[in-house]
Amino acid sequence: MTQTGHGSGPQVLRLMNCAAVLSAIRAAGTARVTDLIHATGLSRPTVSAAVSTLMTDGWVEETEAPDLDLPRMGRPARVLRFRADARYVLGIDVGPHKIYCAVADLSGTVVSHVRRDVEEASTHAQLLEQVTATMRQALDAVPVPSSALAAVGIGTPGVVDEQRGAVVQAPSIPGWSSLELGGLFRRSVECSVRVENDVNLAVMAERWNGVGGAAENLILVQWGARVGAAVLVHGELHRGAHGAAGEIGFLELEEEPQGVQPDGLGPLESAAGTAWILSRARSLGFDGADASAVLTAAAGGEARALQAVDEACARLSRGLASFVSAIDPELVIIGGSVALAGDAILASLRRHLTRRALVTPRLELSQLGDDAVALGAVRLALSDAERRLLDVYTAAPQADLP
Amino acid sequence: MTQTGHGSGPQVLRLMNCAAVLSAIRAAGTARVTDLIHATGLSRPTVSAAVSTLMTDGWVEETEAPDLDLPRMGRPARVLRFRADARYVLGIDVGPHKIYCAVADLSGTVVSHVRRDVEEASTHAQLLEQVTATMRQALDAVPVPSSALAAVGIGTPGVVDEQRGAVVQAPSIPGWSSLELGGLFRRSVECSVRVENDVNLAVMAERWNGVGGAAENLILVQWGARVGAAVLVHGELHRGAHGAAGEIGFLELEEEPQGVQPDGLGPLESAAGTAWILSRARSLGFDGADASAVLTAAAGGEARALQAVDEACARLSRGLASFVSAIDPELVIIGGSVALAGDAILASLRRHLTRRALVTPRLELSQLGDDAVALGAVRLALSDAERRLLDVYTAAPQADLP
Repeated sequence: MTQTGHGSGPQVLRLMNCAAVLSAIRAAGTARVTDLIHATGLSRPTVSAAVSTLMTDGWVEETEAPDLDLPRMGRPARVLRFRADARYVLGIDVGPHKIYCAVADLSGTVVSHVRRDVEEASTHAQLLEQVTATMRQALDAVPVPSSALAAVGIGTPGVVDEQRGAVVQAPSIPGWSSLELGGLFRRSVECSVRVENDVNLAVMAERWNGVGGAAENLILVQWGARVGAAVLVHGELHRGAHGAAGEIGFLELEEEPQGVQPDGLGPLESAAGTAWILSRARSLGFDGADASAVLTAAAGGEARALQAVDEACARLSRGLASFVSAIDPELVIIGGSVALAGDAILASLRRHLTRRALVTPRLELSQLGDDAVALGAVRLALSDAERRLLDVYTAAPQADLP
Repeated sequence: MTQTGHGSGPQVLRLMNCAAVLSAIRAAGTARVTDLIHATGLSRPTVSAAVSTLMTDGWVEETEAPDLDLPRMGRPARVLRFRADARYVLGIDVGPHKIYCAVADLSGTVVSHVRRDVEEASTHAQLLEQVTATMRQALDAVPVPSSALAAVGIGTPGVVDEQRGAVVQAPSIPGWSSLELGGLFRRSVECSVRVENDVNLAVMAERWNGVGGAAENLILVQWGARVGAAVLVHGELHRGAHGAAGEIGFLELEEEPQGVQPDGLGPLESAAGTAWILSRARSLGFDGADASAVLTAAAGGEARALQAVDEACARLSRGLASFVSAIDPELVIIGGSVALAGDAILASLRRHLTRRALVTPRLELSQLGDDAVALGAVRLALSDAERRLLDVYTAAPQADLP
């Protein structure tokens, strides 16, 4: 890796030129030197020198020209490509019930992932141990040294101070509140670690790869055993003044507040989460092993499963309607395991919402499935890695001390 | 008024220089030509020519130098001042119960205002007639021709399409839904008319002159006979995808939706508005003429009035807690007539909110009183007038057709 010089003008300029050429190659996918001269406004010798440095540092490689079948005169032009596999990022979804780790290259392609159910963990140290083990397993599947890990993103339930990388409040995971998660995790890896609320990451994944594409104002409801929401306002994630925006699962619906339940669930989670759906379906005589069975049966039109799901939608819509009234989004995305019930969920929610809100937004099911949070964590880590990637070449060198 | 030339280069440049000098004078309050040369980077002859044009057009006047008591050599320097009274703006608050018109000069100083209770109006034409009469009364108190009216801002309850200047939905005013209010109003005045939701205007007034100053994320609850809210996110008014963000008065608290009441009130308004407070206080044996009497008594510590107010706070906090969970603001401002109950309202709301929300924001009472919406409408009209003021000099001239 080229080291940053110490206050030497031409050296600084050379590094900035490297950054400009690297940006241009990344933006174009593949590029000839001529393209790079055009894109950067730099001279041919400057671009060539920068390309050499970037190749030596391992960021760029020569590839076959894509127009090989065209008649050529003279030497074929060099075609340069960003080496997406030069570094990797790691996205981790840590929840009370599962850990999901995804390894992706710098183009965002997931090259390895491991999911494991969380075994009983009563302290944060026990849970962290399981996270680290899952991470090692995911990284072992990729033939790269640990030094190739550029950044880690972690999603976790609860209120997160993303500046500090700390979990402020997480009623759903024992020992997880007031936890310097980023700091603890940095002991296991040699790169930057960023922490974000899990549903905030899911909404980033929806914008990146999901149904959230163009919506400027949207609410994502992540609805499974737990219920959380994330809010996008003017196209930006809205965290709120204390990082607590979107905590729909802790809404109190009743006149008398219920508070956090003994099982760590918030009032709305307890009233409409998958545990309630399962128990309600069973009380209606539905014979199923678990909540997934109820949701799948509802998707297939089974009457008792449908009724349980519809009642859960009526309950959820009581909280969601207030969120819709506060935010007035154009789109609400329903993610999490209830999406198994498919259009039955959307139809039922739409009906209940229309009765409760002045304006009913468009409703869509998430298409991302179980790995939405991990994918958002990958996106978070990628942003971090991309920034640092250019920092290598653009960071102002420190002046020599006299 | 200087007319914009047609495609002539030097003329366009002269107008742009006028705009630059006018901006500099407005920003400084009063300025000498030397200050303007420094602020604009223009030459002395250019600045002097621009000042002459601006004085001829009536935007700028010479004033006495503020340092008259200092010893001077030679001729006193010309001190120029923006003529805030060159034009006026009008802010109007139209509600189901009152009309409030405020006339302000271009510095935002209110020079005349008229408030009138709305008499029974069953059509929008009847109400508009009353608005026009109130406006004439407010303008008659200012000795200026109607051509000096630069812009009008109107605040009204309900969902407003502020681009079209239309009221989309306004359950509280008969005949007021689907109303092209801006267009209808433009028949009575010879200037631009902008329409905005009333509570959105109140929040603009709080940012301008009230307790909202530095808060980036805040909710204003306007709580009287009706209950509305406005939401500020990242320092910007959040209107939502359909202009319906913040409609807290129509929140449904109960399992079975109540819908809009026969008196036009939304469910939460009906459950916690001043009509409910009065009726509850009376049922507790409080003997008072109206809701103001209850609120004033609560401020004075009267037990039955306090109980009615506390129960209303418990009800309102059910809706407000959901808004707080969705937005996570650093500040909630309570405006409207309930502010008469003073700190009793804040203490009670804080207690109920703390039991219902994960994070409790700071709570403040609005200090703006009855004219918050009209003041916000003045602010809206001022922004419009300021933009048009510079447009006179900067608008690109149309090219001559061949």
